[in-house]
Amino acid sequence: MTPKGQPGPETQISGDLRRGDVEAATDRLRRMSPAQVRRVLGRSGAGDVAVIFRLLEKNVAVAVFASLEPRQQSQLITALQDEDVQVMFAHLQASGQARLLDEVPAEVAQRLLGTLNSGQREDAGRVLGYPHGSVGRRMGPVLIELRPGMTAGEALQSLRESDVPEQRLRRLVSLPVVGRAHRLLGMVELTVLASAPEHARVADLMTTDVDSVAATEDDETAARRLAAEDLLALPVIDVASRLVGVLTLADASRILAEEETEDAARSGGSEPLAQPYLSTSVGRLVRSRMVWLLVLAVGATLTVQVLEVFESTLEEMVVLSVFVPLLIGTGGNTGNQAATTVTRALALGDVRSGDALRVVRREFAVGLGLGAMLGTIGLVVAGLVYAWPIGVVIGLTLLSICTLAASVGSLMPIIARQIGVDPAVFSNPFISTVVDALGLIVYFLIAQAVLGI
Amino acid sequence: MTPKGQPGPETQISGDLRRGDVEAATDRLRRMSPAQVRRVLGRSGAGDVAVIFRLLEKNVAVAVFASLEPRQQSQLITALQDEDVQVMFAHLQASGQARLLDEVPAEVAQRLLGTLNSGQREDAGRVLGYPHGSVGRRMGPVLIELRPGMTAGEALQSLRESDVPEQRLRRLVSLPVVGRAHRLLGMVELTVLASAPEHARVADLMTTDVDSVAATEDDETAARRLAAEDLLALPVIDVASRLVGVLTLADASRILAEEETEDAARSGGSEPLAQPYLSTSVGRLVRSRMVWLLVLAVGATLTVQVLEVFESTLEEMVVLSVFVPLLIGTGGNTGNQAATTVTRALALGDVRSGDALRVVRREFAVGLGLGAMLGTIGLVVAGLVYAWPIGVVIGLTLLSICTLAASVGSLMPIIARQIGVDPAVFSNPFISTVVDALGLIVYFLIAQAVLGI
Repeated sequence: MTPKGQPGPETQISGDLRRGDVEAATDRLRRMSPAQVRRVLGRSGAGDVAVIFRLLEKNVAVAVFASLEPRQQSQLITALQDEDVQVMFAHLQASGQARLLDEVPAEVAQRLLGTLNSGQREDAGRVLGYPHGSVGRRMGPVLIELRPGMTAGEALQSLRESDVPEQRLRRLVSLPVVGRAHRLLGMVELTVLASAPEHARVADLMTTDVDSVAATEDDETAARRLAAEDLLALPVIDVASRLVGVLTLADASRILAEEETEDAARSGGSEPLAQPYLSTSVGRLVRSRMVWLLVLAVGATLTVQVLEVFESTLEEMVVLSVFVPLLIGTGGNTGNQAATTVTRALALGDVRSGDALRVVRREFAVGLGLGAMLGTIGLVVAGLVYAWPIGVVIGLTLLSICTLAASVGSLMPIIARQIGVDPAVFSNPFISTVVDALGLIVYFLIAQAVLGI
Repeated sequence: MTPKGQPGPETQISGDLRRGDVEAATDRLRRMSPAQVRRVLGRSGAGDVAVIFRLLEKNVAVAVFASLEPRQQSQLITALQDEDVQVMFAHLQASGQARLLDEVPAEVAQRLLGTLNSGQREDAGRVLGYPHGSVGRRMGPVLIELRPGMTAGEALQSLRESDVPEQRLRRLVSLPVVGRAHRLLGMVELTVLASAPEHARVADLMTTDVDSVAATEDDETAARRLAAEDLLALPVIDVASRLVGVLTLADASRILAEEETEDAARSGGSEPLAQPYLSTSVGRLVRSRMVWLLVLAVGATLTVQVLEVFESTLEEMVVLSVFVPLLIGTGGNTGNQAATTVTRALALGDVRSGDALRVVRREFAVGLGLGAMLGTIGLVVAGLVYAWPIGVVIGLTLLSICTLAASVGSLMPIIARQIGVDPAVFSNPFISTVVDALGLIVYFLIAQAVLGI
């Protein structure tokens, strides 16, 4: 860790490049691990990224390239020589190649595919054959297969003799056992193999009642299953139960981290960034938020129309307008609380679409409770500061708005799930629009009723 | 998977219990895996949970108990017999015991500690000696240690002869190598051990330049490191570099999933739930949101005061009030977008506290861009629908509010990190309060200047 006060390595490299001191930069980079270099690239703009990358040693460059986000890889490709691109691309796993091919423009994709040999192109083609967001696109290759008739000793020997590169060997914790035509029979864990007597048969050591996942299944669901059920790996099978790949816990972690970033971005009202924050240009940041901001603003014009309808009421009692931000703000907060809780519960599998009625009933009760509490405080404070009729209006409005907002807010993620839209994306604009507009209508109707205007 | 239309197993069990048909419920439970039972418990209220749990077979009950959230375990304990509690508790890992001890009231904690034998109490005590939220509280025990002088064959033999229960053996993917006084010398991976020649020495197979983590380090930081650097396990050391535990990728996944749930809850404005949504009572749901809602509402009263200051302006031009929700809503959205992006970047380590100036500069530019776009649209639409002076006011206000909101919003998470508060918790109320109030002031000042009121 860099001692406090001293500039970090990225700042130093940035400084070297500004001064044109290529030797110093190359020297600093040589002393870094691939993970550190990746972090440096994540904090540098597109121009610096290309320059820095070309200063790396070949094997470090290959490792770093494989660890970048597809967006970063795509940007780099335009700045690299064709032979270098070919080497980088060929070293990616088939799933990494597929993701990059999705990211680049069509002509670049054709060019990249052309650099692969027929075996590699077959692997890439197989992965691309799976739908977006499916396990098939994210799984790793099957590196070793065992047969049920092998002994533990023979199995370990086959591991020793395999030509799997050491980098990938590290990931083998659970080995699949296949029968005729690659049908998956079971899994045996390396720790079990290594701690069993040498003559024990794989057929006796393996677990047959084994979890597996279909290649066409949703990748996020599979990843959560892996994590929730404490598995180290899941064999991936096709429709005929043949083993086609392996999804490891590391793969699952990466999938979930990406989902997290996407969800966080969308519930905050912007498109997720496809690369580290500081390496994203200002223009791209604006573009990632523009659409959302526009959608939300258009939704908010509904409040303008509602307020116009009640403009005469406002003229008669201008004091009513001073509470508007407070009331709809509280409605928005309440709705967001409910939506966030239900969205998270849906993601974890704690709640399913069929629970809609049960969820809305609970949230109605929760909203009532919160509204009663806030409403009482509002009644007393507004009553004392202004006048009791005003207090009554504020109190009743808070009660109604909280109940309404919690119910609506809890329903949005479930509706989103049903129509196949991302709950985080769907809920935010609907809650602001619907709850704000309805809340204002409720406010003015209560005010008219209580104050007789 | 249950076919569509048929009630799931949880609903069926719930139905059995309503009818008092204990035999049917017991039968159904007997056919479930511990993971399925855990899901059933996650959808049942506290009363049903106790009943269901007592119907389980002993070994299933022990496995299920270990997989529950500490809150659920705590609730269960009050409903179980002392001997059962003793068995459940003793079967937990030391870290699980520590978490449960933190959850239960003091007398219960004393009683639980009393059920442990001296060796177990020592382990639990050691874990409790670490601060909350530290790696020491979440790490697993060291199950096997290797010596540098061993051969690969001897190492595997020691694995075979160890009395580590099979459940925990599954988790051993990377084995620590220790020297005198348990000083950590390096790590060797099981796949490497298993695929190496039998006479190879552990000292030659191990990696000495090994990542390790201090037991006092923050658990979330360590978990992200594990995930980001694609490690399978991290050895945990004390101040004297002695090996005290192991943090596996599975441990890291659990830590990050909990952080995710906490962050999602807090950024949505509520306290995180300590158990699955449907098993949380309505009362607890209200309590988890009440404080936040109150804090946000109190912050929002600032807008009431600002609007009072400008009440005369509003009286002169009531039409100004119809835009208030739209304007501060847009400010809130812009601020949230910025805060969400920066919060996520901070969590991933893409941005650090020292980047504050760089971040605010970018977000100022982003806010300017977004505000210019929205402001132009607002100018034209409001100008055409109402009058051009109004259009100018709306346009200028949107420009100012977006710029202000993005800058403030991006700064909040960084300030939160600096003062040691959770960024997700800190940002939301400050953005709503500060941006809303400042936004209103800006609006009315611009209106007064342009419209001459």
